[in-house]
Order: sequence, then C-alpha cells, then structure tokens
Amino acid sequence: MHEITSLINLELSGKSVNKKDTLTRLKPLLNKDTIALAQVDPIVGDIEYNFNKAKVYIEWANELKLGAIVFPELFLIGYPVFDMIDRFPNIVEKNVEYLEKLAKITGKTKVIIGFCEFNRFYVGKRYFNSVAVLADKKIEKIIRKTLLPVYSEFNDARYFQSAEFNPKDRIIEIGTNKAGIVICEENWADKDFFDTPVYGFDPIDEIVKTQKPDIIINCSSSPTRAKKEQLLNNMLSFVSKKHATPIVYVNQVGAVDNISFSGSSRCYDSKGKIIARAKSFEEQFFLVQMPSKKPSRGNVNHIFSLPSGLEQSLNEQKAFSLDYEPDLERTYLTITNSIRDYFNKNGFKRAVLGVSGGLDSSVCAVLLTDSLGCENVYAVSMPSKITSNESRNDAKELCKNLGVNYFEIPIKDMVETSAMTFGKVFDEVEKSWEGRYKNPLTMDNIQARSRAMILWGISNEFSSTIPIATSDKSEAYMGYATINGDMSGGFAPIGDVTKTKLFALARWLNSNRIKKDVIPRAIIEKRPGAELAIDPKTGKPLLAEDALMPYEFLDEIIWRVENLHQTKEEMLKEWFLYEQKNPITNKQKSEWIDKFFKRVQTALFKWSLMPPSPIVDARSINKAEYNQPITSKLKFY
Amino acid sequence: MHEITSLINLELSGKSVNKKDTLTRLKPLLNKDTIALAQVDPIVGDIEYNFNKAKVYIEWANELKLGAIVFPELFLIGYPVFDMIDRFPNIVEKNVEYLEKLAKITGKTKVIIGFCEFNRFYVGKRYFNSVAVLADKKIEKIIRKTLLPVYSEFNDARYFQSAEFNPKDRIIEIGTNKAGIVICEENWADKDFFDTPVYGFDPIDEIVKTQKPDIIINCSSSPTRAKKEQLLNNMLSFVSKKHATPIVYVNQVGAVDNISFSGSSRCYDSKGKIIARAKSFEEQFFLVQMPSKKPSRGNVNHIFSLPSGLEQSLNEQKAFSLDYEPDLERTYLTITNSIRDYFNKNGFKRAVLGVSGGLDSSVCAVLLTDSLGCENVYAVSMPSKITSNESRNDAKELCKNLGVNYFEIPIKDMVETSAMTFGKVFDEVEKSWEGRYKNPLTMDNIQARSRAMILWGISNEFSSTIPIATSDKSEAYMGYATINGDMSGGFAPIGDVTKTKLFALARWLNSNRIKKDVIPRAIIEKRPGAELAIDPKTGKPLLAEDALMPYEFLDEIIWRVENLHQTKEEMLKEWFLYEQKNPITNKQKSEWIDKFFKRVQTALFKWSLMPPSPIVDARSINKAEYNQPITSKLKFY
Repeated sequence: MHEITSLINLELSGKSVNKKDTLTRLKPLLNKDTIALAQVDPIVGDIEYNFNKAKVYIEWANELKLGAIVFPELFLIGYPVFDMIDRFPNIVEKNVEYLEKLAKITGKTKVIIGFCEFNRFYVGKRYFNSVAVLADKKIEKIIRKTLLPVYSEFNDARYFQSAEFNPKDRIIEIGTNKAGIVICEENWADKDFFDTPVYGFDPIDEIVKTQKPDIIINCSSSPTRAKKEQLLNNMLSFVSKKHATPIVYVNQVGAVDNISFSGSSRCYDSKGKIIARAKSFEEQFFLVQMPSKKPSRGNVNHIFSLPSGLEQSLNEQKAFSLDYEPDLERTYLTITNSIRDYFNKNGFKRAVLGVSGGLDSSVCAVLLTDSLGCENVYAVSMPSKITSNESRNDAKELCKNLGVNYFEIPIKDMVETSAMTFGKVFDEVEKSWEGRYKNPLTMDNIQARSRAMILWGISNEFSSTIPIATSDKSEAYMGYATINGDMSGGFAPIGDVTKTKLFALARWLNSNRIKKDVIPRAIIEKRPGAELAIDPKTGKPLLAEDALMPYEFLDEIIWRVENLHQTKEEMLKEWFLYEQKNPITNKQKSEWIDKFFKRVQTALFKWSLMPPSPIVDARSINKAEYNQPITSKLKFY
Repeated sequence: MHEITSLINLELSGKSVNKKDTLTRLKPLLNKDTIALAQVDPIVGDIEYNFNKAKVYIEWANELKLGAIVFPELFLIGYPVFDMIDRFPNIVEKNVEYLEKLAKITGKTKVIIGFCEFNRFYVGKRYFNSVAVLADKKIEKIIRKTLLPVYSEFNDARYFQSAEFNPKDRIIEIGTNKAGIVICEENWADKDFFDTPVYGFDPIDEIVKTQKPDIIINCSSSPTRAKKEQLLNNMLSFVSKKHATPIVYVNQVGAVDNISFSGSSRCYDSKGKIIARAKSFEEQFFLVQMPSKKPSRGNVNHIFSLPSGLEQSLNEQKAFSLDYEPDLERTYLTITNSIRDYFNKNGFKRAVLGVSGGLDSSVCAVLLTDSLGCENVYAVSMPSKITSNESRNDAKELCKNLGVNYFEIPIKDMVETSAMTFGKVFDEVEKSWEGRYKNPLTMDNIQARSRAMILWGISNEFSSTIPIATSDKSEAYMGYATINGDMSGGFAPIGDVTKTKLFALARWLNSNRIKKDVIPRAIIEKRPGAELAIDPKTGKPLLAEDALMPYEFLDEIIWRVENLHQTKEEMLKEWFLYEQKNPITNKQKSEWIDKFFKRVQTALFKWSLMPPSPIVDARSINKAEYNQPITSKLKFY
C-alpha cells in the first residue's frame, strides 16, 4: 500500500513512471468514495506555477476516476499573500482567470481548491478567502470563509471579508458521501475543546447539526510550530469523535520567509481515530478512502509516521522542559525546508557563513549542508587575535566532516585598520562630545562587522549566493548580537531556536544524520561565548553566560513570557528548573529577571532588523508573529 | 483669544505661569458648555507617564469648571500598542488600575478618555478599544469601539473585540448638550462621502437618527500622511453638514517609530464650517465652546493655521504632480517630530551621519539639526578615491552653514585593506565556485559598508548616539542602497520621501528656515549619484538616473502603483508628466517599467531590513503599512 502515493509522487516530481502500470494496479482499489489530498507547495503570487502544479494533480485524479481531489486553502494565489493583493489587485484577477481555466479541465472528479475571490456581494473588504468546487468543466460552487483569524502569524481579517455563514452552502456530494466543507480556522472553534473560544459560533457544530454530513473536509494552510502537531491531533480527534463524523484535513507544504507548513494531511474516523496521514514536509498525492455505501475492494488509507518524537508525544506539554527530544526532528525538517524554499523560490543556490567553532555557526553549517548540499555551502573561518586555537580547529574539523567548502582568512588587517581609523575618528568626536565610553565593546564589534563585510562581499561577488546570520533566539532576546555583524545576513536559520534547544539539536544531529558526529564534541561541550572580548578576570574569552545569565534560566524566562505571559512578580513565585540543580538566592533570581526585561527593551530595535527566520517555537518574537513598537516602555522591573 | 490655550500650555509644559491670573482672565469666558480638547502625546506602555500627563490636564479642567475634557483614543495605554497587550497583559491591568485612579480625581467636569479594557462580556478578542467617561470620582460610562480598522497602518481587529453597537449607549450629557461619542474610525463610514464604504453601517448616522445629539465627539488617534488633512477636513465638514450636527474631533500628537500624529484637533459647526482648530504637531490644552442653551459671555474657539500650503489645498489632489509645495511644511514637521520623539522617548540624544555632499545626506543633516540641535549632530565626511572635490566641499559647506559638528576622515585605508582581504577570499572561493562576477559593485560596496562601520562605531563608543540611514524612498523601491551601508542606521528620516519631493524639500528648507540657503546650491542642482563607482563611459562617478531611470519617471511609477494599483499595461496607456517635456519611445517606457518591477522584486528583502522611517507619503512601503512576502512573484513584466 506504501507504493500508491509514492509511485504517483515520482510521476509528479518529473521522474518517469510507467503510468499505465500504475493505473492498472491502483484502479481496482479505488471508487467514487476515494479522494485525493493534494498536499502541495505553492509560490505566492505565481499563479501560472500554481495552476500548472494543480493541473498535473487534477489530471491524475481524473485518470483514476476519483470522487474528488482537495487542495489547500488559497492554493491558487499562494499563502500567505499579505498586502500584495491590496496593492496589486491584478494578481487576484489572474487567479480568478486561472480558476476558470482549471474548471475547463475537470470532469466527473470534483476539484476542491482554495483561491482569492473578489467580494462583489457585501460592503467591506475587497476579497473573500474562498474554496471553489469545480466539476464537469464548470465552477459548481463557491464556499467563502467566515472565521478569519487575526493573531500570531495570521492576519486574515486584514485582507478578507468574513462571509455570512449558512451551513447549507457548505454541503457537496462526493460519491455516496455528503461532505461539509470548512476552511482552516473554521475547524478551530469547538467550545468544548478550547477553554477560551475565539469565536461566537462553531461552523462544524452548525453544519453537523443541521446538515448531517457523512464527512467534513477541511482545506487548510496551517503553519507548523512546536506543540502544534499535538494540539492539532487532539483537536481533530476530539471534534470528529464528538460529532461522530470523519474529518479529512488537507494542509499545504513548503515555506514562505518565516512561515513553514508541514503538510501531514490526514483523516480521522467517526470515533476520533486517525486512519490516514500523508508524509510530513513533502508534496503528496495522497489517497484516502471515505466511508463508502458501496463495497470497496481495497483500502488506500495509509499512515505515514510523523517526525520522530512527535508520534510519542501527542499530548501537549504545558510546562517548561529541557527535554526537546520530541521536537528535534520536526525542528530540523522545518528549518531545512525553510532554507531550501527560501533559496529555491527566490533563485538562490549557495550560502556562505562564518564558522567560529561555536555552537550557533556549527549547527547552521549542518542545517545548510543538509538543505543545499555541501558543495553549495562555503564556510569561512575568520579568526581574530581573540579566537582560540581550539575554536579554529573545531571549525575546521566540522567543515571537514561536513565536506563543505572551507577557507580560513585572518581578519587581523581589517580589524587593525578599522581600529586605527576608529581611533582617529573617536579622538576627533571627543573634542565636541562628552560621554565617550572607551568601552572595549566598540572595538570588539569591529570583528563581527568585518566578518559580515567579508560574507556580504562573497555574496555580492558570486552569483546566487546569500550570507547567513547565525544568531539564535536566546541571544536575540538579550540583544546579544552585533548589528551589521553576526545578526546580519540574508536568512537566519536558528533565529527562533533557544540555546538550550540548540545544544539538544546539535546532539540530535550527531546521532541521527547518516554521517554521525559531524559536530566535534568540544563544540557541544564547551560553554558558549562570542569570542569577541577577553574577560579581564580570567584572561580568557568572555563567556556569554557570565555576561548574561545561565542559558537554562534565560530560556525558561523566555518560555514563561511567551507562553504564560508572566510578570516578574509571578516568576519570582515559581520554581525554575535551573534552581533544582543550582540553588540561587531570591536576589540573584530577581537580578536575572530584571536584566532580562531591561535587555529586551533595548533589543527591540535589533529584532526589527533580523532577516527572515523560520518560526520553530510554540511562540516567538519573529517579525511575522510578534510586533512591538520600539518606542515603548516595558515597565516590569 | 490666542492667549488662552498658550498660557495653559506654558503651565502644562512646566514653565511657571501665574495660575490665579490665568483663571481670573479665563473664567468669565467659560461655562458648562466649554470643553477642553486634550491634544496630548502618550508613551506606549508607560501608564504612569500617561496618567501623570492626564492628571495635570484634568486638574486644569476642574479648576476652570469646564463641562468636559476629552482625551484621544487609547491614551492611557498609548497608541499604537500592537502585540504588547497580547504578550504582556499586565500593562492592560495597569491601565485599568490607573483609570480608576483618574476617576478619583474627577468632579463635575467629565473626563472622556481612551483606554484598553478587558473583554469580560463576549467570546472573542481579549480586549476592547474603549473610552471611559469619568465624573464625580466614578467611572460613569464605558463606550466600546465597534468599527475596527485593519488596513495600512491599522490593525485594530488583531487586538480588539468589535463591540455590539447601540446608539443609546453612545450618549452623555455635557452642560446643556447631549453629546454622542464615537471612536476614530467610527467617523469614517459615511456612505455618501465614500465611494466604497468599508463597513456595513455608519455609527454617526445611527446615533443622529435615533438619539438626535446636539454634538458628536470623536476620540481619535489618527496618523498624519500626505493628502490626509484634505480628506479629513472634507469628510468631517461633509458629515457635520449632512447631519446638521457639530463635530468635535480630538487627535493625539507625537510619533511612535514609523507613525506620527499631527494633532490639529478641531470642531465643525452644524453647517460643516470649521470653527476651531488646535495647533498642529504640538501638545495643546485647547478650549472649544459648544452650542449653548445658556447665554455665554465669550467665545473661546480659535483656529490655528495648518502647516503652510495645506490650508490652501484642502481638496484632495487625485493626479500625480511634481508640485509638492502644499505638503512640504507638513512633511518637515512630520519628520522632525518623528526624529525628536524617537530619540527622546527611547533615551537617545545625539545623531551621527555620513555626509557625502549629495542630496539625501544633506537633507537628513538639516532635519536632524532642526530636531536635535546642531550640537547633537555629528556629520562625518568619509571620502573615498571616487568622491569628487566638489562633493567634499559641498558637504563641508553644508555643515558649516548648519553649525553641526563636522569631521572629514578618508576611508582609503579601510577600503584598501578590505579590498585586499576580499581579493584573497575571492581567489580562494573561486577555486570551488563558479559564477564569479568580477563586478566592480562588490568593491564599490566596501565604501558604503566601511562608512556605516564608522558610524556604528561612533554610536557604540559615545553615549546616547544613533547612526542615521540616509536612503530615500525612490532608492528603496529600486533596491539602490547598500545593506549594512547607507541603508543601515538606527532611524531613516527620509525613507518615505521620493527623490523629486526631496529636491522640493531641499529648496523649501533653503527658503523657509530662519537661516536661509544652508544647503549649497550645487547639491540641489547636480544630478544625484551614489559616488560609489565610476561610469566607464564618462570617466566620472556613475549617476543614479543612468543606472536606474529619470527620477521624475520613477516617482510617477511609484505613485501609480501605490495610489492607483496600476499594472504595466495600464501605465503604458497613460501619459506621464515626464513625457510632456521629454518625449520617449514606447519601447523606452516599457523598459523602464519592466526595470521597476524587476528591481522591486529583488528590493523586497532590503525593505524588510530598513530601520524605522516616518510615514510621510499618501501610501508607502514602510514596514508599518505594507507587508509583502520576500518569497513571492510579482509577475507584471
């Protein structure tokens, strides 16, 4: 049964497959109650590309004489399209034109596909977020989304008019089944499942009560993030069981800037049991057998496993934990797919990054290698006089292990020349201005900025090449990153990964890649430091945790702020994981929390300058999700 | 009559005024139908600051025994507060706590003030955008906003629950008047005034029809931008006349990152005539006499003039024009106020910028001087070997005229050292990678990046100092700016000003500042060029317009895209202003438009990295307003 979808996927990805053979084998298993889930990856605004992709899938569905084929929400225009449809309405015209072209190639197999529709009915927003049902060369029906999310990475109500809801309009016939159609968010409004429902009514409840459908079909474009698979699984299972109605959930794959989609389209039976699930993070032509009133000779349902760990942790964890194991493969797939899509869809091929022998750049190097191929990664080691020999050697060994291009170039000359110029400039400025810090920080930053200059230089000089920003989430919160330095680049792979999770990810990479232990053990075992400055107390490079606070403690503050919205007072009453092993005074705890809020206040500006970075965590400060005015006061300390 | 508000403003701004004197003079003019418009500047999230400001205003209103004092929308929490209230709900708790404190100091004078309210009534969003009416030490009434804008710089529906609308709830008594309260957007829904209304109903229409109020009071936080004063004036005049009901409109002042507020609070009579208007871009305790059923002995209404030009152009211009005159003072005030607020509210004092002798940096230097004082501006001239003597001298003369700190430091050494390092790096990379451009661009960018490095160095080394990004809007569209170079900085004063408007602004500055002609004529008269590269054809520095297209033509494309959403085909049918003087072939025109769309596509990434920049134009690509996925296709060419 494995073969069914994979054979068709081979064909769809351009590899030659004996079509006749495939058809002969498949057809006996299928009937009008079989539907295909088109788990596809669109390009936002590229209507022709999306049309052509849909066309191939539809032609297969036609040949297999399926009951229906279901595409994700807004597939034809691409999701998330943001303000483009406001400023460039002609892309909407084009998606309507191509919807009509798609209708022309339909026959008995119904095509259910998301597109952006002009609102010609009500006053209000110019567009609807709609799903068209195409069949027999015609647009048979249009279903318009009523529940429009506006929170986190969602801004539907900014672009779309909420349509009046009428359960009758949501019903279509597929084979012997009466199906009720909902669009993404409309599945997330169950009053018994959610403690605090966002909406005043539940579309599924209304459809089931008044129309008694045999099945619910949900067209989604629902991004992946930590804990979401658990929530989604529990929610869909709960709702299908509660209403004793199977749910077919179709989700897109692929990534757009910060947002990525895991696919994992699926089906729950009327008892809330998962009976089919497509692969995660891959395009799929995936066949599902609906309940059938006619006898069927086979069963095409198949459950591909989730990324490892998730399968075993389908209950949402509500407490902070340093056990990241259940989320590491998903994190890895999210980031590598995000890198790949950002490069491919924007016409880039190669990445250049600085490797320091530290954790951040090492993990980035591995992720880039696995996304782009080692031949397309150039790692530049740019030691300064502060860089230890150990770090240089670790960087070199890492690159050797990975097989990426590697070159070491000391930045001593650049740093010294800049420092000389700086010296002259500062002495001059000091004649007019007070308040000179004479802080080594200024000179330290020259190192980070010279390195970024070299990386941007390579990206300017060599075609299709982007420099990579290696900052992580814990550092971003602390503003512990240099503007035009390590936080500068075309893409920031680990910008939403905290340091403690990065350590876990590094270990996971060493154990789970085909080639084991590519990251030298010293990199994972040493305490992190930017190696920009010498600690006057020890004479060794300053360690990040000494400048900030222990990462375990910091990451738990971040978790408490993002997920529990706790204030300082509330956190002081809680027992942190860190404290279980390292007793600390209340004074120390209070100081660290104060430092956190103080540094966040000044880090806001840096957040605004971060390049795109995949959302990985349950909540984030990624620009696509969280927006705080720089000019604001966070008076919590 | 001038004195009334100005005297009180002196008191409020901390200068000593004989309070008794003021009261004695004012009181005879006032009665219970006099209301104060508190045109104030909040700090987002700084509840104590906003509370203290409100308190002083309320105490004055109490002493003057006014009928009411009206504050802007969301004043107590600060607008725009964005996602802060989602992640940090305790700032909302605090604003509720302080609202209760404010109520305690009220007496007979009603206080009408915007705050963020917890939604304890409906399912849905956690908050309401509310206005409280305080009197006699109590919260007398709460009015909740129903029409929530989500477009351009507005995202209300992301944070707030739309309240059910009941016209009766909107009525309060002030003196002998029955007033109907609306909140900002609720005034912008007239079906006769707007061709395409955004909302299904018009709150003012409902209030007037069912409640017959004597007056409408509007609490707003409505940002300034080009053409908006004209629209606002026409709209308020139309609505007050249509309903034969005076409108009192209270707006905030001050700036938050990209968004700034002009104040200009005002009152229209029942014939649609403006009878009072507060100063623009300044805090004001502004008194307005409502229609009174009791005889009054004076008239406190006053009309302060609008920024020059606007007063004469109160009809919206619908066509592209190179006559920017009617908007230059407003542009100037918007930018200087934005700079001032960004610096003051974030604890900065001083700016450092590179002066090249070109238009952009020259205009920035003037704007900074007028915002921060010449002693707080450091202009660094950083010539490279391409910089002409003329440019160096122009930069120097400009700085001398302005009286700002000035210093010239050649960047030759930094550029040469970097170029040497680059040479080694590139030769090495070339061993593994094809596709080396050997494009002079790479080396040219070293200049821009070395300059930014020096500016960031100064900002790191000297307290309270920010470097300034000098990119303009025309360049941003073209991606004609260097990442980590001229587009890098803590604030971008002219990021939303097109080049043709900048020329006009430069001339306006030379004529309208107390000190005339500070910008050397050569800077305004020469054609702009980045002076990063030599044009091989002429041997002189490459001119921007040769690399791009004539700025007049470019700026008209920008206008057509932003305001008319035109496609290439549509533009080809139109007659551009540029063509009237410079006939061009259709082929040339088509090529320029193609180049525009092509460059926009690759400039998207740069837009995402721009520092905050005040919105000035009628529409913009400022991050606070326009969001397009980098990973997207604009297939218009």
